[in-house]
Amino acid sequence: WYSAPSRTGVSAMEEILARVVAPLPSYETRDKSPPPPESTSLEFMNYYRGLEKEDKVDFLSKLSQECGVDHKTVSELATKLLDAQRRDQATILQAEDRLRYSLTPRYKQLFSHVSRVEGGVKFLVDLRADLLEILASKASENPHIRDLNGTLKSLLSKWFAVGLLRLERITWQSPCEILQKISQYEAVHPVRNWTDLKRRVGPYRRCYAFTHAAMPGEPLVVLHVACSGVCFFFPQSIVREFATLDAEEDINKITSAIFYSISSTQAGLQGVELGNYLIKRVVRELQSEFPHMAQFSSLSPIPGFCSWLQGLLSQCRKEGRGADLLSEQEWREVEQALDADAGTPPVDSLRKLIATGEWTRSEKLCLALEPVLMRLCAWYLYGEKRRGFALNPVANFHLQNGATMWRINWRADTSPRGVANSCGIMVNYRYFLNETSNNSVLYLQNKAVAASQQVLGLVSQFLKNSKL
Amino acid sequence: WYSAPSRTGVSAMEEILARVVAPLPSYETRDKSPPPPESTSLEFMNYYRGLEKEDKVDFLSKLSQECGVDHKTVSELATKLLDAQRRDQATILQAEDRLRYSLTPRYKQLFSHVSRVEGGVKFLVDLRADLLEILASKASENPHIRDLNGTLKSLLSKWFAVGLLRLERITWQSPCEILQKISQYEAVHPVRNWTDLKRRVGPYRRCYAFTHAAMPGEPLVVLHVACSGVCFFFPQSIVREFATLDAEEDINKITSAIFYSISSTQAGLQGVELGNYLIKRVVRELQSEFPHMAQFSSLSPIPGFCSWLQGLLSQCRKEGRGADLLSEQEWREVEQALDADAGTPPVDSLRKLIATGEWTRSEKLCLALEPVLMRLCAWYLYGEKRRGFALNPVANFHLQNGATMWRINWRADTSPRGVANSCGIMVNYRYFLNETSNNSVLYLQNKAVAASQQVLGLVSQFLKNSKL
Amino acid sequence: WYSAPSRTGVSAMEEILARVVAPLPSYETRDKSPPPPESTSLEFMNYYRGLEKEDKVDFLSKLSQECGVDHKTVSELATKLLDAQRRDQATILQAEDRLRYSLTPRYKQLFSHVSRVEGGVKFLVDLRADLLEILASKASENPHIRDLNGTLKSLLSKWFAVGLLRLERITWQSPCEILQKISQYEAVHPVRNWTDLKRRVGPYRRCYAFTHAAMPGEPLVVLHVACSGVCFFFPQSIVREFATLDAEEDINKITSAIFYSISSTQAGLQGVELGNYLIKRVVRELQSEFPHMAQFSSLSPIPGFCSWLQGLLSQCRKEGRGADLLSEQEWREVEQALDADAGTPPVDSLRKLIATGEWTRSEKLCLALEPVLMRLCAWYLYGEKRRGFALNPVANFHLQNGATMWRINWRADTSPRGVANSCGIMVNYRYFLNETSNNSVLYLQNKAVAASQQVLGLVSQFLKNSKL
Amino acid sequence: WYSAPSRTGVSAMEEILARVVAPLPSYETRDKSPPPPESTSLEFMNYYRGLEKEDKVDFLSKLSQECGVDHKTVSELATKLLDAQRRDQATILQAEDRLRYSLTPRYKQLFSHVSRVEGGVKFLVDLRADLLEILASKASENPHIRDLNGTLKSLLSKWFAVGLLRLERITWQSPCEILQKISQYEAVHPVRNWTDLKRRVGPYRRCYAFTHAAMPGEPLVVLHVACSGVCFFFPQSIVREFATLDAEEDINKITSAIFYSISSTQAGLQGVELGNYLIKRVVRELQSEFPHMAQFSSLSPIPGFCSWLQGLLSQCRKEGRGADLLSEQEWREVEQALDADAGTPPVDSLRKLIATGEWTRSEKLCLALEPVLMRLCAWYLYGEKRRGFALNPVANFHLQNGATMWRINWRADTSPRGVANSCGIMVNYRYFLNETSNNSVLYLQNKAVAASQQVLGLVSQFLKNSKL
Repeated sequence: WYSAPSRTGVSAMEEILARVVAPLPSYETRDKSPPPPESTSLEFMNYYRGLEKEDKVDFLSKLSQECGVDHKTVSELATKLLDAQRRDQATILQAEDRLRYSLTPRYKQLFSHVSRVEGGVKFLVDLRADLLEILASKASENPHIRDLNGTLKSLLSKWFAVGLLRLERITWQSPCEILQKISQYEAVHPVRNWTDLKRRVGPYRRCYAFTHAAMPGEPLVVLHVACSGVCFFFPQSIVREFATLDAEEDINKITSAIFYSISSTQAGLQGVELGNYLIKRVVRELQSEFPHMAQFSSLSPIPGFCSWLQGLLSQCRKEGRGADLLSEQEWREVEQALDADAGTPPVDSLRKLIATGEWTRSEKLCLALEPVLMRLCAWYLYGEKRRGFALNPVANFHLQNGATMWRINWRADTSPRGVANSCGIMVNYRYFLNETSNNSVLYLQNKAVAASQQVLGLVSQFLKNSKL
Repeated sequence: WYSAPSRTGVSAMEEILARVVAPLPSYETRDKSPPPPESTSLEFMNYYRGLEKEDKVDFLSKLSQECGVDHKTVSELATKLLDAQRRDQATILQAEDRLRYSLTPRYKQLFSHVSRVEGGVKFLVDLRADLLEILASKASENPHIRDLNGTLKSLLSKWFAVGLLRLERITWQSPCEILQKISQYEAVHPVRNWTDLKRRVGPYRRCYAFTHAAMPGEPLVVLHVACSGVCFFFPQSIVREFATLDAEEDINKITSAIFYSISSTQAGLQGVELGNYLIKRVVRELQSEFPHMAQFSSLSPIPGFCSWLQGLLSQCRKEGRGADLLSEQEWREVEQALDADAGTPPVDSLRKLIATGEWTRSEKLCLALEPVLMRLCAWYLYGEKRRGFALNPVANFHLQNGATMWRINWRADTSPRGVANSCGIMVNYRYFLNETSNNSVLYLQNKAVAASQQVLGLVSQFLKNSKL
Repeated sequence: WYSAPSRTGVSAMEEILARVVAPLPSYETRDKSPPPPESTSLEFMNYYRGLEKEDKVDFLSKLSQECGVDHKTVSELATKLLDAQRRDQATILQAEDRLRYSLTPRYKQLFSHVSRVEGGVKFLVDLRADLLEILASKASENPHIRDLNGTLKSLLSKWFAVGLLRLERITWQSPCEILQKISQYEAVHPVRNWTDLKRRVGPYRRCYAFTHAAMPGEPLVVLHVACSGVCFFFPQSIVREFATLDAEEDINKITSAIFYSISSTQAGLQGVELGNYLIKRVVRELQSEFPHMAQFSSLSPIPGFCSWLQGLLSQCRKEGRGADLLSEQEWREVEQALDADAGTPPVDSLRKLIATGEWTRSEKLCLALEPVLMRLCAWYLYGEKRRGFALNPVANFHLQNGATMWRINWRADTSPRGVANSCGIMVNYRYFLNETSNNSVLYLQNKAVAASQQVLGLVSQFLKNSKL
Repeated sequence: WYSAPSRTGVSAMEEILARVVAPLPSYETRDKSPPPPESTSLEFMNYYRGLEKEDKVDFLSKLSQECGVDHKTVSELATKLLDAQRRDQATILQAEDRLRYSLTPRYKQLFSHVSRVEGGVKFLVDLRADLLEILASKASENPHIRDLNGTLKSLLSKWFAVGLLRLERITWQSPCEILQKISQYEAVHPVRNWTDLKRRVGPYRRCYAFTHAAMPGEPLVVLHVACSGVCFFFPQSIVREFATLDAEEDINKITSAIFYSISSTQAGLQGVELGNYLIKRVVRELQSEFPHMAQFSSLSPIPGFCSWLQGLLSQCRKEGRGADLLSEQEWREVEQALDADAGTPPVDSLRKLIATGEWTRSEKLCLALEPVLMRLCAWYLYGEKRRGFALNPVANFHLQNGATMWRINWRADTSPRGVANSCGIMVNYRYFLNETSNNSVLYLQNKAVAASQQVLGLVSQFLKNSKL
């Protein structure tokens, strides 16, 4: 057998695994096995951190394959369990417990030990980020990697259970360390300078984060809220102009909260529900702070709308089904507004317009495109699915939480980024507190989307037009 | 089968269980099942808190029996797994994962939901304390209760993994809330007043505790340390006279640490290792604070020694084997010192002496009994076992941690309590930092006890005398 | 003049003064004189702390006499100022400034230097306490001591100006160090144990203190408040029974605040207004915390009432003016209730009753004495004066603050202490927020006391009876 | 008398002064005068804040002139004091105390009241900044303004006495509010971005500030320190390259501290010594943190050197005394290095070179100018005086503190700013801890400058050359 020369060497990997991953203690002695010395966990962490990217793939494959469960023992105990079926309950329970124990992968123990070391939990969060990248990039075909990921996710879910998280309100008095990270992680509306940052924690704003004892100084999910007497906002005003830095809050005028940005900061915690819980905790905080607060909604970006639209247009062109998207009248209006070269097919002109965002500079085009883009966007959000759930990840997040797709806003984010991602459209997901729990079940189990009249109206316009 | 009328009614229990314990989602939808609303968990908590003690036993029995795993599904999946043995690895892994999932008791999910609610973790810690009491008192013969306890313990172990604990140094500036609890939980040397408490966090002392994000303001394990230049202390001096309140610490003179009290405060966390980790963390803190600190040892009580001794004496009397314990010469000395009634058998006199603690008032008796009690105590600590491990729980704790049984101290705790529990004897367990890990393995796996020359000498004196 | 040999020696004192008290720099170089090294101040502090009580008197006399102003320079500059009267304004201003500067005692500079040293401010507060004791006990006839005291008081007033104080709310989470001091300084209702202390910072209570940057961890004035929906309370209920420890506050029901204890902790800050400001700051805090809070009043003890009464009785007896205090009818009732020996004069019986507090055990006597003691007490509080201001120090404090003498409460403090000091009577001083400022001026300048109808009614009953 | 129309009107000013500045209470009632209600102080503050700049000048003039001392009373009391000279001491002391009291300007009381209001101390600090600006700009010829300033300075000195200041170490965990201000106030080496700021509070650095209870969140003086094993540094390396962000400090290697930036943030506290005390406190902190720390020195800029030099050159040119500054040989070298136009006089070339900083780009010129500029700079720092003290304000600050002028560093600050201000030269002032106190006295009283051999050597070179 010939092995390609590896930077660290397969034998080094095997040696380290042999040293740091202990065998599973026998069922009888499982509570009598002292943890290995911390140095073992540290050795593992340092070794892994020192690996090159490709070697990490190899190493994790090896770990998942060679340090999982002992299949032979499992099948023996499964046989025993079947044999015990007619015996008394105590015997069956025993047999089940032994079988359950035997299904513990050896690497699970390793992770438990690592989690106890200073910095160990953060290490595992980052290791899981690596795993997710490997799974996404299909860098490894190894079926064990998926199991490894599942085990680690389940451990992280327990360590990051909501009772163990700390809700922190971030203010201008919070440690600079936290605020710098808030600033750096902000994905929705990037922070530009001190003043911008100060405004986000200033009057008529709230900024909350979950932190965790095992990762001090590290905000895990961050939620930015604008508090106001009016219900819906456009982002520019929220992010920049809304409320001066030295305004005095008038608590009695505040009736609604707009969640204008929510960011998860740890790739390795994907699938571990934090954002959902953060929104719920913050709603409770806000209600106790503002006696008249009654309306809660997000103001959300629509990443992916433009690229979905480009794909759709390109397909329609290929299939000559342009009329599915715009009515004849609409195509005409677009052409007129464009002063287009006679030769160019209108679908191509439209694709170019959207790619460059130039349409935003013509009043005519804006008027012509508004109904078109609004109903397409409504469909994208409401009708486009992946395995039955909303294709758009932000929509999926809020619908899982039990929100209602509430209002699609034209010209809501006219920044270059907003135009490029979503033709400047943004959407509100609204949280009706006594419906979220029910909505969430309906969405997750029946894939039913709660939506407002405005959204449903736009969707039905789309369906009338389209024969898709 | 006839059931005694219950205060809350069996049907009420069944109804509540039906409502709060959800069925296990199918394997396919396990990640798509939203958590139930918080109100469900709160209902469960309130219901349970309102039950009378006996009803709690019934309720937990029901919960464990009716909301555990679905044995039928488990055996089906076990069969499938056996069928899959010759298939490819991915198929086997899948079958194992399905089987593993089916082995999840339904109440485990309930506990996870409860843990997310404010106060939920503390609720579960207290619920486990109830479970342990039921198991200890044999109030229920239900074998499922043991499984319930095992599941809960395993969850608690994850939530209280050491990486999630916070080490806090307790000082006179700590919140009164914490210090009052420290004072109240102190089991080894009860705190008498403000001054006494202040001294324990004053100069030449350290007091550390682990706290947890989910149970704010609640010290989980507390360790009291005396820092000094001399190695071993007697408890009175440590607790009271040692170092005045306004002394200035001379860091350069401090070379040793004596752990003179360690208390666990949560009955429900029994079996979840905290004390061990606390000692290790504190050792690290002390080393970084005191550059010359090199010796670490406990000064520990010996609860149970006197009652063990009484049992032994009573048995010897019955069996007429008094000579196994004291040599003829020693019996004579005791009798002389006693001026005993001629009639009373000397074993009875000795039993009475020990029961009343009166011997401590006679210099002669003290001299006569010292060698006897010292070697009996050494044997009690070193030789008496339960399932192979030290019978004395404090000894078992330190030996598990890897300490060495170091020195048995005559007249170390002359308080009435100290005399009544352990004839005034105390013991040091010493932590040699580079041996603890090894000692721990040897003890837990081979049941080997690390002990000093002094202890071994006393033990061999005991063995020479005794024919036990 | 012959001086008794002093323990430390006059020459040692003179030597130390010569070393630590620098001459006043010339007017021209007053801003160019660097402060002496810290060691000078420390030497002074250590020397003074080491002195015996009598030597302190000598030392402070010497300091005040020999290190005050230079009278010769002062009179020269006074002459110059008079000569300058017809010159231009700038010249006059200069002459005044030189004169003002020359009036600076040298010890003032010393105190400034001491204040900069760690612990220096606290040292000076304690030194002033010594000065006040000397002045009160007339231990020294030296007129300079009074000047020294005046200078130090004026410095302390500046260092303890209210803008430099920090208002701290004391809770069960406050440092134990603070809570122990709160407990120890509580003069009005002594704290008995942990539970008692916890209750005072628990629900429906507030406890506030001023602290100061220069004396960390030291509460300077402490105010205890009970918050409630009812307006006036009796102290037992406030201190002990009122509100359980785990009650949940209902903010909407709280309409009134009762200041049931205020204690100054630093004897040396006498005359430096702190209590007044503390009450005002706390009123503001309470108003912002409780939206419906509208009534503020103290519930105050009446120290000195009984001893004043005894003096009065004794004087009446001597002068045979018993009828001035009780009407004939009242004397009869007392005698009947007493079943007194025929021989004892009723005034003597009454004096004895009051001295022993025994009357509280007889329902009859209570009924008979209530109107008598209530009107005498009203007079004591309202009518008895010292230099025109209320003789009772608590009354004087609240009247200076602008409060109204509101309600005299029978059987309000039935503790032995309460009976012994004030026959169980307590009094409310009420703060009407928009009248305090005016009341304060009227009291301080015109000696006018604001009082309620109840109080004035009792006073007029007293005056009708008495011919005093 | 005709008054130019004023924006706010003279009568409004007079009215407000009449309302807010109370008359001085009589000597007898001085302790019996309650403070005015807070609203009076707030009215004054709001009124003043609302004034235009010119009106502030008028208003402060009026305040100083009309609300100062009552000259008539002063002279009467001065007469009385003179009359009392032959009386007993008590009488004289009384007369002096009355005179002293009469010398209290009425506005002093006003300031005391204002200081008690929230934000009042900060208001007065800012008001003094206005006063200093008026005095500096000679916007008012009113001699009373100077008195007003003196009174306010003396009050501020008491409120900001060092015992009342809090030393805070600023770290990356400090509130963002503080760090932003640190960043904004940094005058010596401007902060460029998050990373730059983070580095200044990172490993091998310390940043300390004094804060004050009355101005929370406001650093008053800020000191930046670099800690190292080497003694002297150049600023670029200190500010940017020196030590990476994630370096681990090796405490045992740190032997010296370089104060590379000290900034006062409050113009209104000019003359109130803070920087001096901050350096001394920090030295103590550093000594207790780093056991081997033994050398302390500043690395200071030399603001004003270039403009002084330009003035000198221009004067020399006028007087034809170029040879006083450079030797013939040196002039030649400069000319050669310049490849100058034959026509331009060398002094002019040199002036232009220095004005543009272009010489730094020529290796030749640098070599030619180094000895010249070094000795001129030494003279500027050591020999140029204003009223006998160092003309350069940074030098004056450190010399007052008792530092020694230690080393003049060529090419130490090559930033454009450094070149433009001081030809890139910087200087170390070294603090020999047991000499500072003595040096300070010698400097302040005898104007003697402590300097090293290097500095004295350069100075004597300058003197040899120059016939100035």
